[in-house]
Amino acid sequence: MVRANELTATHALRLMRAGDLSVEALAQACLERIRERDDVVRAWAYLDPELVLRNARELDKREIKGPLHGIPIAVKDVILTEDMPTEHNSPLYKGSFPAVDAGCVKTLRAAGALIFGKTDTTEFASVTRGGTARHPLDPGRTPGGSSSGSAAVVADFQATIALGTQTAGSTIRPGSFCGIYAMKPTWGAINREGLKMLALSLDTLGLYARSAEDLDLLADVFALEDRIPVAPFELRGARIASCRSPAWDKVEPATRDAFERGIGLLREAGADVEPLELPDAFDSLGEHHATVMAGEAHVSFLSEIRAQGELLHDDVAALAKNSKGISKSALLTALDAAAACRVTFDAIAAGYDAVLTPSARGEAPEGTKTGEAALNAIWTLLHVPVVQIPGFKGPSGMPVGLSLTSPRYTDRRLLQVTRAIGPLFESSGTES
Amino acid sequence: MVRANELTATHALRLMRAGDLSVEALAQACLERIRERDDVVRAWAYLDPELVLRNARELDKREIKGPLHGIPIAVKDVILTEDMPTEHNSPLYKGSFPAVDAGCVKTLRAAGALIFGKTDTTEFASVTRGGTARHPLDPGRTPGGSSSGSAAVVADFQATIALGTQTAGSTIRPGSFCGIYAMKPTWGAINREGLKMLALSLDTLGLYARSAEDLDLLADVFALEDRIPVAPFELRGARIASCRSPAWDKVEPATRDAFERGIGLLREAGADVEPLELPDAFDSLGEHHATVMAGEAHVSFLSEIRAQGELLHDDVAALAKNSKGISKSALLTALDAAAACRVTFDAIAAGYDAVLTPSARGEAPEGTKTGEAALNAIWTLLHVPVVQIPGFKGPSGMPVGLSLTSPRYTDRRLLQVTRAIGPLFESSGTES
Repeated sequence: MVRANELTATHALRLMRAGDLSVEALAQACLERIRERDDVVRAWAYLDPELVLRNARELDKREIKGPLHGIPIAVKDVILTEDMPTEHNSPLYKGSFPAVDAGCVKTLRAAGALIFGKTDTTEFASVTRGGTARHPLDPGRTPGGSSSGSAAVVADFQATIALGTQTAGSTIRPGSFCGIYAMKPTWGAINREGLKMLALSLDTLGLYARSAEDLDLLADVFALEDRIPVAPFELRGARIASCRSPAWDKVEPATRDAFERGIGLLREAGADVEPLELPDAFDSLGEHHATVMAGEAHVSFLSEIRAQGELLHDDVAALAKNSKGISKSALLTALDAAAACRVTFDAIAAGYDAVLTPSARGEAPEGTKTGEAALNAIWTLLHVPVVQIPGFKGPSGMPVGLSLTSPRYTDRRLLQVTRAIGPLFESSGTES
Repeated sequence: MVRANELTATHALRLMRAGDLSVEALAQACLERIRERDDVVRAWAYLDPELVLRNARELDKREIKGPLHGIPIAVKDVILTEDMPTEHNSPLYKGSFPAVDAGCVKTLRAAGALIFGKTDTTEFASVTRGGTARHPLDPGRTPGGSSSGSAAVVADFQATIALGTQTAGSTIRPGSFCGIYAMKPTWGAINREGLKMLALSLDTLGLYARSAEDLDLLADVFALEDRIPVAPFELRGARIASCRSPAWDKVEPATRDAFERGIGLLREAGADVEPLELPDAFDSLGEHHATVMAGEAHVSFLSEIRAQGELLHDDVAALAKNSKGISKSALLTALDAAAACRVTFDAIAAGYDAVLTPSARGEAPEGTKTGEAALNAIWTLLHVPVVQIPGFKGPSGMPVGLSLTSPRYTDRRLLQVTRAIGPLFESSGTES
């Protein structure tokens, strides 16, 4: 029998409803796993086992059980929690304890979730180094970032679900590296109040889980809603676009192989897979993303550099100082080009059931830098939903995932497609 | 001699630099004014005179003085302050005290400002009734809303500067009603972290002051920066567009007269004033604004309605429940239309030194409803900077203001134009 900490949320909820599992037992199993593994994975920024168990026992006493009753949810430490500190992995916020829940945390608590602890992040989720978390399968590698700890604890069965954030590729890339499901919903679909600001037009809450069903459960709780009603979906006869993305030149063999294998699996399952080449205007989106991120981060970190600039990481200080010299004119050009491309992409992608595209350059790199977001950034800028599906492996045996995307506000449809494709990739991705 | 609480920030700073005014004396003058007037104006949600004086004395001891050294700044109670509660005028947040500063507050503190207290707002800055604040010139009237308290305390000389927010017309309209300067900067120009979320694509920090110079001082502190370098400006020969706006049918005689008088004054001063009719696509912007605001508020209030929905004001609950039934498809149509109009408006407005347009329907209405945002909403949706200039009066003797607007990220240029036009309207607006 699997240990409780290894269950998906959907499975654990079924057991709890049948009276075969208590919240406290599930919490204890996670805490035990953490005791075994924390020395290696080092993914928690804050964890108070007593608080966790006290809340677990309170949940066990509840008559009315919410849709996430007792599910251990880890929260990236750039998201406010009323009963835990929020430190952003920054000395500027050491011991900072704003006693208020971010909107997303409040919604999860109202659904009965057990907010478990805070997870390691790069400083302000804004740079590609820093943070303590290591890859659960190989501590010599990064779990990816900036949502490093959140991806690691879900992959390592230390928590059932986790919250991350994505401004470039901070949710999807670690999901791929760690071999779990990850979702970046449509920009604006989930309240971002109480998340540290990095880039206003890009920042999005990210979700981690170990099954597509669990993502769907979260989509229910966050009331994600599509632009058109979700029609039934069958893989046989489905229209899937395979999009190498304008950043294909960054792709390593591990991802190239996974991409080809994924297309092959979809075709074997009866799907119609067509290559999709995006219009020329999309070639500039990577650069536009970099402009928007730097231009908006300049505004976001003004207060920190003015208040205690000497405590900022050099890379964050560079953002605060606009060291790239992004002008407001360049920022507007990028924002307006992105807005136009959103309309175009929605129209193109509406012709398919989903668009398949890489999740990362390749396997999790060795060392402490958290990797590159080139394969994710344009989708973040387009505001479209993205789901990362695990299932493939690279030459070092490390996980490699693939992404599905679709028009803005087709998040539920995308999860429906994911529920069909996920098991296929998971069961056959690594067969030869 | 004027009392210290009646000074503009610019003037008070000059006296303090010369050693002729202490921060404590300025704070005491404001507190005395509040003691005299609070029974009538009722504009404060939180005020701790001891905290104010303690901080004032600390500032007096500082060797290095910031650009806002000792200036009393009132903060709308939907903006987080580390040393005061933030209650959003909602029973759901009664006693809530997240010990962290919003980005804007942190920036002001770093500039030496004296964060004075929290000001009255309608619930979550989201509805047109609620709140205790009354118009300083006539307690039978509203000071406007939702930034009711912030506008009232600046108009009534209880604080020197105040922060508001604007999602539709919540900063500019109260500024017009109360006869003070108000500014809504370009969307994204000032960090919105730590402001309660109402509508992600619209919410903007708002600024109140009693002079255009003071707004310019704030623009320095917030590092507002234009898309092109600011060229010298002279009213003689300036090109000003007079734009009745697509909501002109809402305008009352008080505003119509002020608008005509404003145009006359500009012409007398040698400016070339030309009527500007916006393209047909702009006629739908009012409706698009309503769609975006309702569609995004639906997401913003999910957590509150899930957590303690019974404590929400009926109007907020209606937003949380999406009682207007805004679909994601309608939301996208509105967002995309707005994005396209932004590009068009920037190009049109670039042909003028500024665009003159109404600030409100007319004088501050009687009663407790805070008035309508029809004249402001389209500019908020267009993300452009808006400055409200006082100077006119309506048939009841109540203030009426006019707005200037210009392309996105020309905030500094707009303030430069305001510094020329403001004194003209202030000195001659009510002469017959």
